[in-house]
Amino acid sequence: MKVRLVAAVVLVCVLLSGCASPSDGISQFSPINALMAGDYQGQFKCADLTSMGDFGIGTFDRLDGEMVLLDGTIYQVKADGRVCRVSGDCLTPFAVVTHFSPDEWFELKGSYNLIELQKEIDARLPNTNIFYAIRIDGTFEHVRTRSVPAQEKPYRKLTEVVKDQPIFETKDASGTLVGFKCPAYIFPLNVPGYHLHFISDKRDFGGHLLDCRARDPVVAIDYIRQIELTLPPGGDFDTIDLQTADQTSLNKAEK
Amino acid sequence: MKVRLVAAVVLVCVLLSGCASPSDGISQFSPINALMAGDYQGQFKCADLTSMGDFGIGTFDRLDGEMVLLDGTIYQVKADGRVCRVSGDCLTPFAVVTHFSPDEWFELKGSYNLIELQKEIDARLPNTNIFYAIRIDGTFEHVRTRSVPAQEKPYRKLTEVVKDQPIFETKDASGTLVGFKCPAYIFPLNVPGYHLHFISDKRDFGGHLLDCRARDPVVAIDYIRQIELTLPPGGDFDTIDLQTADQTSLNKAEK
Repeated sequence: MKVRLVAAVVLVCVLLSGCASPSDGISQFSPINALMAGDYQGQFKCADLTSMGDFGIGTFDRLDGEMVLLDGTIYQVKADGRVCRVSGDCLTPFAVVTHFSPDEWFELKGSYNLIELQKEIDARLPNTNIFYAIRIDGTFEHVRTRSVPAQEKPYRKLTEVVKDQPIFETKDASGTLVGFKCPAYIFPLNVPGYHLHFISDKRDFGGHLLDCRARDPVVAIDYIRQIELTLPPGGDFDTIDLQTADQTSLNKAEK
Repeated sequence: MKVRLVAAVVLVCVLLSGCASPSDGISQFSPINALMAGDYQGQFKCADLTSMGDFGIGTFDRLDGEMVLLDGTIYQVKADGRVCRVSGDCLTPFAVVTHFSPDEWFELKGSYNLIELQKEIDARLPNTNIFYAIRIDGTFEHVRTRSVPAQEKPYRKLTEVVKDQPIFETKDASGTLVGFKCPAYIFPLNVPGYHLHFISDKRDFGGHLLDCRARDPVVAIDYIRQIELTLPPGGDFDTIDLQTADQTSLNKAEK
């Protein structure tokens, strides 16, 4: 009964947030291959992100932690595990946001690890050629996340940085998975497949999702047929080597 | 003297067209890997294109010819070589447009084949990581183009269609090259490097550019840091196989 109530409240919340949406496209700030190559220079303000969406993921200037944008608020999960809110002046080198406006939602009964959860979602998606923003609310029996520490110049590539990434684990946390499923052809602009970040309801735990086990999750999905990529206005981006793209490295850094 | 006058008139024209631009981004309709895979179903109206730009390239429903959008007018170069204007209701499966607003222009003295022309432009571009819309006006000692014939279902892949593409040649034609230079990381969404279409001043010759020799060309370049990709609203796009991307095939079809 309690689960049903939670599901209903979540549904009302996501539908209300959807009703306020002026558009149904993804706004992406910088291609992810630039982040992979070590362009951690924050050139977009967080206020730019929230003007283009209320939902999304990213990172911060100098790769200082993982970003979760949920219900219009940006959270920073730092490398020591602390979660804090950031101001609109805070800078980011990479983020992907949208006005979350779900086209579909469903409640799953039982306990699902990440692969099982993705399989359940895959079975309900209309096709593999469009973009999806995905919000999963529920109680998580187990969540494993990572964050990344702020870097100093000269910046190392992302595959080097994540070799010693701090990993966090928690049990029995209510919270939300926030992210996207992108089609295969989005590589190397963005991450093909699922890319999810987590934030707890208490806003005291989060990060880039590595694994989880969700109990009775409520899944809301926004079907998206438009993506706008904005490049940084100059700076390091203009001179970094973006000639090659390596999906194996991306998988190492993001999966 | 006459050349200088032409150059000055062209410059005024491109600057005036630039002044009217509401934005400086590229609007792309469908990813090119869908066209490569044989999705020739026109799902965007030409009026949608001209609302997003006055300059661009593309094709038409059923792959019925090459598109040139110049100074707000869309031209269709059919497989028999005829050039005609199209109505706003005409459909396209793939197009790339922008409000042309040059940041730089220069006049080259002498005679340049396509590779030499691209080399001269490359030497002047500020970097290889952003997008460029490129307009080249001049007298062309020689132009070689191709078009593509309207296809019947079941659609063959683009690499198959272009095996028997009609090729057109002309000499001493005044005209305009219209197109883009995209960064390497845009593959497979769009064509990396140069992608140019030609239209004669008399509007009686054009197509997808294969080769040329330009005399005293005037080059105008629009630096672009934003690209918006809109997917088709459904139809064939949703079910076509877009899981693999092959740059060699794209080069065969577009270079």
